[in-house]
Amino acid sequence: MVSYAVTLLSGGLDSSTVTALAKNEVSNLTALTFHYGQSHSKEIDCAKAISKSLKVEHTLLDISFIEKISWYSALTNPEKFPIPTNSEKNQIGFNIPITYVPLRNTIFISLAASLLESNILNSIEINGANPDDVEAIIYMAPNFIDYSGYPDCRPEFYEQISKAINQGSKIYTEYGIPFNIKTPIIDFTKADIAKLAYKLSVPLEKTWSCYRGTDKPCQECDSCILRAKGFKEANLIDPLCE
Amino acid sequence: MVSYAVTLLSGGLDSSTVTALAKNEVSNLTALTFHYGQSHSKEIDCAKAISKSLKVEHTLLDISFIEKISWYSALTNPEKFPIPTNSEKNQIGFNIPITYVPLRNTIFISLAASLLESNILNSIEINGANPDDVEAIIYMAPNFIDYSGYPDCRPEFYEQISKAINQGSKIYTEYGIPFNIKTPIIDFTKADIAKLAYKLSVPLEKTWSCYRGTDKPCQECDSCILRAKGFKEANLIDPLCE
Repeated sequence: MVSYAVTLLSGGLDSSTVTALAKNEVSNLTALTFHYGQSHSKEIDCAKAISKSLKVEHTLLDISFIEKISWYSALTNPEKFPIPTNSEKNQIGFNIPITYVPLRNTIFISLAASLLESNILNSIEINGANPDDVEAIIYMAPNFIDYSGYPDCRPEFYEQISKAINQGSKIYTEYGIPFNIKTPIIDFTKADIAKLAYKLSVPLEKTWSCYRGTDKPCQECDSCILRAKGFKEANLIDPLCE
Repeated sequence: MVSYAVTLLSGGLDSSTVTALAKNEVSNLTALTFHYGQSHSKEIDCAKAISKSLKVEHTLLDISFIEKISWYSALTNPEKFPIPTNSEKNQIGFNIPITYVPLRNTIFISLAASLLESNILNSIEINGANPDDVEAIIYMAPNFIDYSGYPDCRPEFYEQISKAINQGSKIYTEYGIPFNIKTPIIDFTKADIAKLAYKLSVPLEKTWSCYRGTDKPCQECDSCILRAKGFKEANLIDPLCE
């Protein structure tokens, strides 16, 4: 069985850990990073550095045009929607927070799946691979904290989108190869992820989770607070915050 | 009930006819056109002209970066994969043709849905609309001929992708508003579409269906042949080919 895989790598703790895991599992792995109008580009530099450290092929796609369409979000439009600090109303765990980017994971998965399908069609139709020996995997890093807040980080969503991309693809409808979306840390807390990252020797000092692009993590945004709590509960040191 | 709708308008006969139909059905309609590395930009000029004729708001998104990921196709990569002429092997109706762009409609729908969701979240959370009074519609123009060839033009696909974007969205999971993907001409032949276009006074001379960007339609590619056959069967004149 030859596995073709794409891992979505933002440069944060979660996706870096999943990428390290994927690197151990498959041979043909591409890390895909999106520049999509995040308010800073620090994450992108981190994604490049992590791919290099892990010796994974890296593709960067500038999809910042989605500011024009996915505009109702603090991540794509921070002037209209300030990034929330630790306030009750906007915190993850209550309603879907303003850091939700409309249909972001649907967009990301469809782009990742298109790259994966192009590579696989090439291997079958040009290079003569046997479809029965080919596997298609997309690695993603949603986890327990995300899916309490974001609809497109929940298991029900991954189940449905897998069926949809299968039905809409040539590799499934003509060659019988299903897309397998792997979400290996979906039940993990941040503490679990910190432990796994240590175990896999993820270069943590090269990751970036903060919603802001300052020199050091702000320690005020939801993302910083959740990460700090995770390392504390795991009794581990976050080298980024030393 | 307030309907928010996005219609995917390529500038061809099919999507122009569906856009004219949508204009008659809903009030808040945006036509969305993608520049995605088609081998010519003629279709895009046509989409702009048709939107103007039909008095529909028009948004153009340059997603030509998808050449990098959806590269296994004659439409995104004509140098590697020449556009097929009327040969048996590549003709629509046999296997999925080389003009299939990997996961194209999944990408298009996710982008359209993101715009629609942004507009609807704004109407509810900023302007105070009642979610029970809001409807979300995406108009698309697959038809009988397409779905015999392209997996992402078949009813099974639309059924699955609707469920997926519902599960991945805030408007559905928090406000109970489902995305309704309307494919009003899915069972139509080209002759049926030509008749409907005449009935709706679609400015046919402004549409473009040919895969090539020459002055006049090439009359050799699959798309030209299907269009000509449709007008002939409907006993109508195609003003573009006069």
